[in-house]
Amino acid sequence: MTRSDRSPHGGRLPSGVARIAVDLLGGDGAPAVVVDGALRACSADPDLHLVLVGPQQSAGEVVGALAVGDRERVSVIAVDSVIGMADSPLRNIRRETTVRTAAEAVYTGRADAMVSAGSSGAAVAASAHVLGRLRGVRRPGLAAQLPTERGPVLLLDVGVTLDATMLELVQHAVLGTAFASVGLGIARPRVGLLSIGSEPGKGDRLRRAVSIALSDIPLPAGGHYVGLVEGFDVPRGGPADVVVTDGFTGNILLKGIEGAFTASRGGSKISEVYGTRPHEAAVLLGVAGDVVVCHGSAGGAEVADGIALAARLHRDRITPAVAGIADDLLTELSSAGGLTIRDALGERS
Amino acid sequence: MTRSDRSPHGGRLPSGVARIAVDLLGGDGAPAVVVDGALRACSADPDLHLVLVGPQQSAGEVVGALAVGDRERVSVIAVDSVIGMADSPLRNIRRETTVRTAAEAVYTGRADAMVSAGSSGAAVAASAHVLGRLRGVRRPGLAAQLPTERGPVLLLDVGVTLDATMLELVQHAVLGTAFASVGLGIARPRVGLLSIGSEPGKGDRLRRAVSIALSDIPLPAGGHYVGLVEGFDVPRGGPADVVVTDGFTGNILLKGIEGAFTASRGGSKISEVYGTRPHEAAVLLGVAGDVVVCHGSAGGAEVADGIALAARLHRDRITPAVAGIADDLLTELSSAGGLTIRDALGERS
Repeated sequence: MTRSDRSPHGGRLPSGVARIAVDLLGGDGAPAVVVDGALRACSADPDLHLVLVGPQQSAGEVVGALAVGDRERVSVIAVDSVIGMADSPLRNIRRETTVRTAAEAVYTGRADAMVSAGSSGAAVAASAHVLGRLRGVRRPGLAAQLPTERGPVLLLDVGVTLDATMLELVQHAVLGTAFASVGLGIARPRVGLLSIGSEPGKGDRLRRAVSIALSDIPLPAGGHYVGLVEGFDVPRGGPADVVVTDGFTGNILLKGIEGAFTASRGGSKISEVYGTRPHEAAVLLGVAGDVVVCHGSAGGAEVADGIALAARLHRDRITPAVAGIADDLLTELSSAGGLTIRDALGERS
Repeated sequence: MTRSDRSPHGGRLPSGVARIAVDLLGGDGAPAVVVDGALRACSADPDLHLVLVGPQQSAGEVVGALAVGDRERVSVIAVDSVIGMADSPLRNIRRETTVRTAAEAVYTGRADAMVSAGSSGAAVAASAHVLGRLRGVRRPGLAAQLPTERGPVLLLDVGVTLDATMLELVQHAVLGTAFASVGLGIARPRVGLLSIGSEPGKGDRLRRAVSIALSDIPLPAGGHYVGLVEGFDVPRGGPADVVVTDGFTGNILLKGIEGAFTASRGGSKISEVYGTRPHEAAVLLGVAGDVVVCHGSAGGAEVADGIALAARLHRDRITPAVAGIADDLLTELSSAGGLTIRDALGERS
């Protein structure tokens, strides 16, 4: 199977109903943008069913705009509470919120996957809490796909692991490799670690330790560690299919690349400069369920893109496949979790 | 004085001879690219004198390509040793290298400023060691200028402080503010701290602590802290004139933005899409001398750009002016250097 056949956003959708829980109150433009995205997604995919989680009125706008015969594809869970961007994602985890309720819809089997454009911290906390993590996984990671001239690049983590540990980065390398194989159809994924130069030893202490660890472990799906890669290797592609970094750096790099594409287009005064830009939707890896997090600034088209991605994750059974090929290694790494950066670097205490 | 009058790369150069030490062996394309850059710089600026540091043969190529009457503008210090990208910048600091010899030319007064496109770690280590740091400065910071539609953005640090401390970031905010004022002509610079969201409290522990510290100190030159900014605020401009981050994140963001501009242009099949891209030359702030570090992948035009920037730093007496307005605050911060992130966040030990 070639790479393009498995492209998550292009080509024919596999048949089969997919029921996606959608957080109507997530995102800067919610609920209007999410309503728009839900309608676009329904119109693009006749086998898509939506479980709309949010205010009854907003859900009613979606239902009202659909043809009468399509209305049975939509159900509603009425919830009014939202987690704001400035709130701690953990503070409200036990309160009823749209993002938590969406996760519960997946947990109870009412939906097959979920999408939120709200605070990614809240989406990660709620889905990890409600759905649980894959066995052995310390912290989930958000993986963004960037199309480049040299093929797709999977960048992770883009926002979860702010004070990342060595174990988290190594586990994300494993999860990213597995996803690149089963989700992007990349045979024997090449895995790079983001740093400030490509020569061995470049980077901070965390990078030096993780690089040593990645050289030692057998990655799943025939994946192999190619060493350090640099910031430009993410938008340009080339040396690695999977680029691993901490959530702080990954988030800033992803937004910087997006901003540069926007600035480059805006100044060009031409509507269509270049097709490649990061997808607005990131996949949450390491959680026991299909979760897609859209950019807070996503528009309707990007929310629809996220819903389509969630449907594909479910139809292609990506998460069980990732768990299947990564489980042994994740568990083994977790039980060796006491390994410190100091150990890896061979430093004396 | 308006912003454009003080643009470091545009407009009329102030008169007065500037003698720039140039590391002929620094950079991926050295020495050919540096020879090309030296010739371009000489041709653009009749008051420019060069002290070429490197192999006699490469220096001879520069001299041979100049008109006979211009040859007296070039002198040579013959050195053959270079620090490779994979070498530790500290390992060879006492050996004779081109970058160290260039710094010594500035220290002894044979040159007014220096330029290297070699390993930035080696350039920083050599210049800080030979020239010394400004009083109170813990670690120098490399500052890159990015032109945006909303005015220039100064991003620092882009490669020195890999495992950065709170004090280093706060001092870089002070140095960056002073440079934005005297070097970029920005009145009352707005200073932002790079993080993963703009809401207060977003980010890792280092960012939360630095944000608290920056809210408390009076920045020089009427500068003021505007809070957290995001990755896209660097290529797009807008909320801040000076964006402070650690050298790991800054390096990766800068290269990611460069890569995105390249990818965007390459795909457009149009030669001139948008004029804004990061300058290839970064200014080293916090060292007692004028030091410019070019990108390792710089071409001849970018090396010439770096030489012109170094000449302007000298002619406009930027480094003494930065030291003058930042000295008190840097010294005061340094003596409070025992303040830890834990203290700033009010955590119990």
